[in-house]
Amino acid sequence: MTATPTREAPSGSRGFDRALADLEAAVGSALVLDREVIAAYSHDQAQFCVPGTAAALVRARSRDDVVAVMHLAHEHRVPVVIQGTRTGVSGAAIASDGCILLSLERMNRILEIDPVERVAVVQPGVVNADLSRAVAEHGLFYPPDPGSWESSSIGGNVATNAGGMCCVKYGVTADYVRGLEFVVPGGTVHRSGRRTAKGVAGYDLTHLLVGSEGTLAAVTEIVLSLVPAAGPQLTAVGVFDNLSSAARAVARIMSNGPAPAMLELIDRPSIVGVNDYAGLGLPEAAALLLVQTDVGRHAAEDLDDFVAALAAEGATDTVVAADEAESKLLVEARRLLAPAMMARGTLLIEDVCVPIQRLAELVEGVAEIGRRRRIVTICPGHAGDGNLHPAVLFDAGDEQQVAAARAAFDDIMALGLQLGGTVTGEHGVGTLKRDWLRTELGSELLELQRAVKRAFDPYQILNPGKVF
Amino acid sequence: MTATPTREAPSGSRGFDRALADLEAAVGSALVLDREVIAAYSHDQAQFCVPGTAAALVRARSRDDVVAVMHLAHEHRVPVVIQGTRTGVSGAAIASDGCILLSLERMNRILEIDPVERVAVVQPGVVNADLSRAVAEHGLFYPPDPGSWESSSIGGNVATNAGGMCCVKYGVTADYVRGLEFVVPGGTVHRSGRRTAKGVAGYDLTHLLVGSEGTLAAVTEIVLSLVPAAGPQLTAVGVFDNLSSAARAVARIMSNGPAPAMLELIDRPSIVGVNDYAGLGLPEAAALLLVQTDVGRHAAEDLDDFVAALAAEGATDTVVAADEAESKLLVEARRLLAPAMMARGTLLIEDVCVPIQRLAELVEGVAEIGRRRRIVTICPGHAGDGNLHPAVLFDAGDEQQVAAARAAFDDIMALGLQLGGTVTGEHGVGTLKRDWLRTELGSELLELQRAVKRAFDPYQILNPGKVF
Repeated sequence: MTATPTREAPSGSRGFDRALADLEAAVGSALVLDREVIAAYSHDQAQFCVPGTAAALVRARSRDDVVAVMHLAHEHRVPVVIQGTRTGVSGAAIASDGCILLSLERMNRILEIDPVERVAVVQPGVVNADLSRAVAEHGLFYPPDPGSWESSSIGGNVATNAGGMCCVKYGVTADYVRGLEFVVPGGTVHRSGRRTAKGVAGYDLTHLLVGSEGTLAAVTEIVLSLVPAAGPQLTAVGVFDNLSSAARAVARIMSNGPAPAMLELIDRPSIVGVNDYAGLGLPEAAALLLVQTDVGRHAAEDLDDFVAALAAEGATDTVVAADEAESKLLVEARRLLAPAMMARGTLLIEDVCVPIQRLAELVEGVAEIGRRRRIVTICPGHAGDGNLHPAVLFDAGDEQQVAAARAAFDDIMALGLQLGGTVTGEHGVGTLKRDWLRTELGSELLELQRAVKRAFDPYQILNPGKVF
Repeated sequence: MTATPTREAPSGSRGFDRALADLEAAVGSALVLDREVIAAYSHDQAQFCVPGTAAALVRARSRDDVVAVMHLAHEHRVPVVIQGTRTGVSGAAIASDGCILLSLERMNRILEIDPVERVAVVQPGVVNADLSRAVAEHGLFYPPDPGSWESSSIGGNVATNAGGMCCVKYGVTADYVRGLEFVVPGGTVHRSGRRTAKGVAGYDLTHLLVGSEGTLAAVTEIVLSLVPAAGPQLTAVGVFDNLSSAARAVARIMSNGPAPAMLELIDRPSIVGVNDYAGLGLPEAAALLLVQTDVGRHAAEDLDDFVAALAAEGATDTVVAADEAESKLLVEARRLLAPAMMARGTLLIEDVCVPIQRLAELVEGVAEIGRRRRIVTICPGHAGDGNLHPAVLFDAGDEQQVAAARAAFDDIMALGLQLGGTVTGEHGVGTLKRDWLRTELGSELLELQRAVKRAFDPYQILNPGKVF
C-alpha cells in the first residue's frame, strides 16, 4: 500500500482524467490511486450493502485538501463519498461507482479544550474515545458513546448523529454540537453555529448537517459542548421472568426521578449468547435490566430507588454492583454482546426506536420474526430510550440464510413502524434503509428534503444513492 | 371590532382581490378585514420596528385554515406573516405591506400529555404557562421559561427558539421539540421528527424550523419532550463589589458541579432600578448573582457548594433563601426588572450572548456605552449561559434620546461580536437585527441560508424582509 499516486485507476471520461490531474496538482500525495488501498476504503461495516468501484481516494490532511476535492468534484461533476473511520453499519460511507472517496480520518487533531466555556474544538477524524480521554484530564465529560466509540470518529458521529448507552440521560451527538466548519460542493468554506452556550442568529444549519450522512457538506471542524465529569458509574440489575414486567419497570424508572445514566435491556437470547461466549453465568431469564447512576454522592439513594422500581414491577431478583469495578463488568457483558454473536456468524445489527410502552411488543415481535424466518435473532438495547438493537445472526455463505436474514430485516423495519417507531434511532439510513426511509417519511417530505439538499449540492455530487 | 369580513381593506391588484375572495370562501369568519383589528395585530413588542400595512388578518382556528392561507397566498404571491401572541421583541411578527397576517393564537389546544413517554402534543397557540401548569398536574415539567412565559405561545417559542432563566440547566426550546406538523407555501402539510426519544431518519427539518421565525413554514402541531418535575427552587445570593469577581464566580460555578438550575446576574443599575420601583432594599452592589438549585433532596448541599464558590471568588456577602417562598421573592425581583424600567420610559431589551469569560467586559462595556451615549443602560441576564440582556431606557418622544438609543443598540451589537459572541442568544433576528445578522454570519453563509429558504418557499412569500 502506498500513498504515492499511481495510474492504476480506470480512466473514466476525458473530463474525469482532467479532474484527476487537477486533483493531483492540488492535493499531492493525499491522492491515492492504488486499487488495493481504494478497495480497502470502499466499504464500511454495513451488511447487505455492496460498494461500487471508486475512482480515487483522497486522504485529506487539511481543510485545503477538502476544499480542493469539493471544488474540483463540483466543477467536473464527480461524485464524492465522505468517510470517517468507516465504522458505520448502514452503508452511508461505501463507495459509489466512479466516486472520489474523501477520507477525513487523518484530520484527527484536538484543536482546543476550554474548561471554562466547557467547549472542545476538534477535527472530524478525532476518535471518540481519544476525545473522551483528553477531556477527562480536564475534569470534563463528552457523553455520546456509540458502541464503536473506541474506533469511530467524531466526524462520523456527527454525520450519523450517533447515540449510545448514556443517551438516556445525556442525549445524542446533536445535543453536543454547537458549531461546525464545513465545505460545500464548489469549495466554499462556511462556519455555522457558535461557541457560546446559546445563539439563534439565522437558520440552524449546524443541526441540519448533523445526521445528514455526508450528503450536504464535508465537515472540517466541530465545536462541541462538554459537561462536568460524572461520578463513578454504579449499576443495579433486575432479573425478569417476563418481558411485560421488564417493560413496565423501564416505564416506571423513566417516568419518575432519579434519571438513570444508563438503562439497558438484555433479552434471553442475548444472555444465552454472552454466557456461551464468555461464560459469565448471567441468569438466563426473559430479560435483564441494567440501570446505572453516575451522580456521585448520594448514588446509593438512586440505586435504592432503581431497585425499588425494579421490584415493584415484579423483578424476580435484583442485584446492586458492589463498586465501580463490578459495575464495569456488567456493562462489559452488555458490550460483549456484539462480539459474542459475531463469533458465531454474520450479524446484522438493527436499530429501531419505539415508544417505551411498546418495548415488550418489539422484543416479542422480533423473537416471533426469528421463529418465522427460522433464523437466530436477539433484541437487546437502550430500553430507556425505546431504542433497541434487534440483530439477526446468519451464515453469509448460505444463500438460504442470507435470504432469511434479509426477510427478517424487512420484517423488523415494518414492526418498528407498526409500533409507532422509527426505522433508525441512531445508526442512520445510508444505503441499507433507503427504501424504508420513503416508507417512514412519505414521498412529499422526502421531496422537501431533496430540495434542501439541492441548496447545498446543486449537482448532486455528494453521496449519490445514499439516504434518498 | 368584528370578526365578520367587511370590505374596508384597501384593494390591491386585481389578483389580490381574487385571492381575498378565495380566502373568504375558504376560511369564512376567520378572515378579518376590519382596519382597527388589523392594526392591533400589525405589531409585536419590538422597538424601532415600524409595521407595514397588512391587507387582511386570518385568525386560524384549524390546520385547514392554515392550509387555505398557505395555498392561496402561494398561488397569488401574497406575503404571509405568521403570528403567535406577538410578544416577540425583534419584530419578526410585524406586518409587511400588503400581507396576510396569519394568527395562530386561537389554535390553542393541548392535544395530549403522555406521562410515560413524557411527551406533550400541542397546537401552536398554547400559552407557555398554560402548558407548564397542565404538565405539572402529571408530575412533569416543561422547562423553557422565556420572560414572556405567561403570555407567549409555544408556537412563538418554537419560531424564535426561546430560552429563559432555566436554560443554564435545561437548555432551550429546541432541546424540547421532537417533532412538528407544518404547512409550507402551497399548502402541503408535512410531519417531521418523531414521538420517540430518538430518531435519525432523514434530515432534521424539525430543528431547521425551530428558530426560523416564520420564514419557512407555518407550524400547526408540536410534539414536545417533558422531564420529571423538579424539586423546590432554592436560591443562594452572592453580593459582589466588582464585576470581575462576579464573572469569575460564574465561571467557577459553571466549570464544577453541581449544575445550577438558574444563574442570573443583576448589575448595579438594575438593582437601583428595582429598588426604586419596588422598594426591595436589595444591596446596591456592583453585582448580585442569584444561583438556584432544584434537585429536591440534598438541595442544601448544592446551596453550600454555591455559597462556597461565591465566597471563594470574593463575594462580600452571601445569603441563602430560607425556603421556596423567599427564593421566589428573589426571582421575582429579577423578573420585576423589565416592568421597573418600563415604568420610567421606553425600554429596548437586548440579547447578546458571549463566552462567560467575557461577561465582565460585556457589563462594563454596556455601562461605558451608556455613558458615551448619555443614556440609561442596564445589563442583567442569564450569566451562566453568557446570555445577558443589556437594555437601553429612553424617552420615545424625545428625538435626541431615540437617536442615542439607536446608537447604543448598534454599539451593544458590535460589542457582543467583538467579545466573541452573537447578536442574539434567544430573541431572534426579526426586523431589528437583519443588518447585524449579515455582519455576524457573512454574506456567503447568508446566501446558503437563502437557498435553504427557497427550498421551502420558492416565491418568498413568508415573512418578507425579516431575518434576511
